Amino acid sequence: MSFARFFAPAAGVPGDRILLPVDEAEHLTRVLRLSNGDRVRVFNGRGAEFEAVVDAADREGVRLTIGAPCVPAPEPRVDITLAQAVLKGDKMDDVVRDAVMMGVAAIHPIVTARTETSLTSLTRGRRRERWERIAVSSAKQCGRAVVPSIAESRQFNASTGSSARTRGEDFPSPVFILVEPNTSAGVALANLEVAIPDRATLVVGPEGGWTTEEVEAAATLGTLVTLGQRTLRADAMALVALSAMFARWGEF
Amino acid sequence: MSFARFFAPAAGVPGDRILLPVDEAEHLTRVLRLSNGDRVRVFNGRGAEFEAVVDAADREGVRLTIGAPCVPAPEPRVDITLAQAVLKGDKMDDVVRDAVMMGVAAIHPIVTARTETSLTSLTRGRRRERWERIAVSSAKQCGRAVVPSIAESRQFNASTGSSARTRGEDFPSPVFILVEPNTSAGVALANLEVAIPDRATLVVGPEGGWTTEEVEAAATLGTLVTLGQRTLRADAMALVALSAMFARWGEF
Repeated sequence: MSFARFFAPAAGVPGDRILLPVDEAEHLTRVLRLSNGDRVRVFNGRGAEFEAVVDAADREGVRLTIGAPCVPAPEPRVDITLAQAVLKGDKMDDVVRDAVMMGVAAIHPIVTARTETSLTSLTRGRRRERWERIAVSSAKQCGRAVVPSIAESRQFNASTGSSARTRGEDFPSPVFILVEPNTSAGVALANLEVAIPDRATLVVGPEGGWTTEEVEAAATLGTLVTLGQRTLRADAMALVALSAMFARWGEF
Repeated sequence: MSFARFFAPAAGVPGDRILLPVDEAEHLTRVLRLSNGDRVRVFNGRGAEFEAVVDAADREGVRLTIGAPCVPAPEPRVDITLAQAVLKGDKMDDVVRDAVMMGVAAIHPIVTARTETSLTSLTRGRRRERWERIAVSSAKQCGRAVVPSIAESRQFNASTGSSARTRGEDFPSPVFILVEPNTSAGVALANLEVAIPDRATLVVGPEGGWTTEEVEAAATLGTLVTLGQRTLRADAMALVALSAMFARWGEF
């Protein structure tokens, strides 16, 4: 028998009595119709998962007592940071959902020369909060006990805009920048070094691709990588690249 | 300068004068507003691509004269047949679109024990025609000159239902059946033989997964393959698996 899973960031050690976040409490009571005495599982988003029992489910929220720890689904051996150019409409929602399912460690939404939105409109639209909710929902669905962090959106400037130190902290090396099939400096994935890193960053551009200047600047930040000979849709790029890299790194 | 591309199954050799299919003609005239004398490209869906000139665009349709052959986008070295359990809602549309983008050779929609639709309702809903249109549209978008065939939907019965000969014709060996992470007989992709085949079949189940009986029967048809430790959404499975296999087979 499998128990329903909930995101409970407050869950620390067995015996803790905690309150579920509002969204999770609604899911528990309204969607799944669970109540006092029901057994569930909770994960804290930082890799720990526990059995738990519902103590109270009323207007004041859902209170649980944390029980025995469970073995969480294993995380990938390579911590991957995805730096993804914000896509049009709600395509970015799909990318966040897919990247969390695949097991990325962090997502950095970036605004590039051809990104068709601005930092201001992303802030005004509270997009980060939306993507955080999607990340929680995807972690619940795919069985992860880790909820990847969603960084504040920011301008992507591979060259002079950010210092090497800043870049190093945010975008763990090695950095792989996905480029179009016929980019001259692009290296096929098959021709990359085979050593499996502890962490890596994958940078994916917007629908309109990178400008020539961005490609040149990006070449100083990491390796330009091509994925086969066909043109991939921007909203499929991250999923294809993560799959290919996990296959290459023995994760699959 | 890049020219708009159209699907023209009648295109055979330079000098041919052909009529575009109705959908394509509408795309040319109404969406792109092209007319007499405009230069375009056409692909015949069987791997050939040509320059072409619009001779006439009127109520009777769009007529073109086929010009010089162009070098088409290369196809993958491995001809992959995707046997995909029909998914709920319009999720199957996304899978067809993604699989064509990735470069599959053929798509066989299948109905399994837990598929939530029937062959009758698929036929009544004219789903095959819909998927064929999506395949054309995806080939246009991703630059392929090949439009993969979409087979008639049919019941999937890995064991006694179909003779070995029939299976062999439809589902080229080796056959890889994707199964859930903890399936006991499942082999991780990383542990598969490394030899690159000329052709292969990938079988992907529905949202509810395979029954125990189906997994047992499938084991006699091919290799049960797992992809990592997380639970993948059914509608992402084909894309992830195709990406992983292409990475493994040096296609990327």
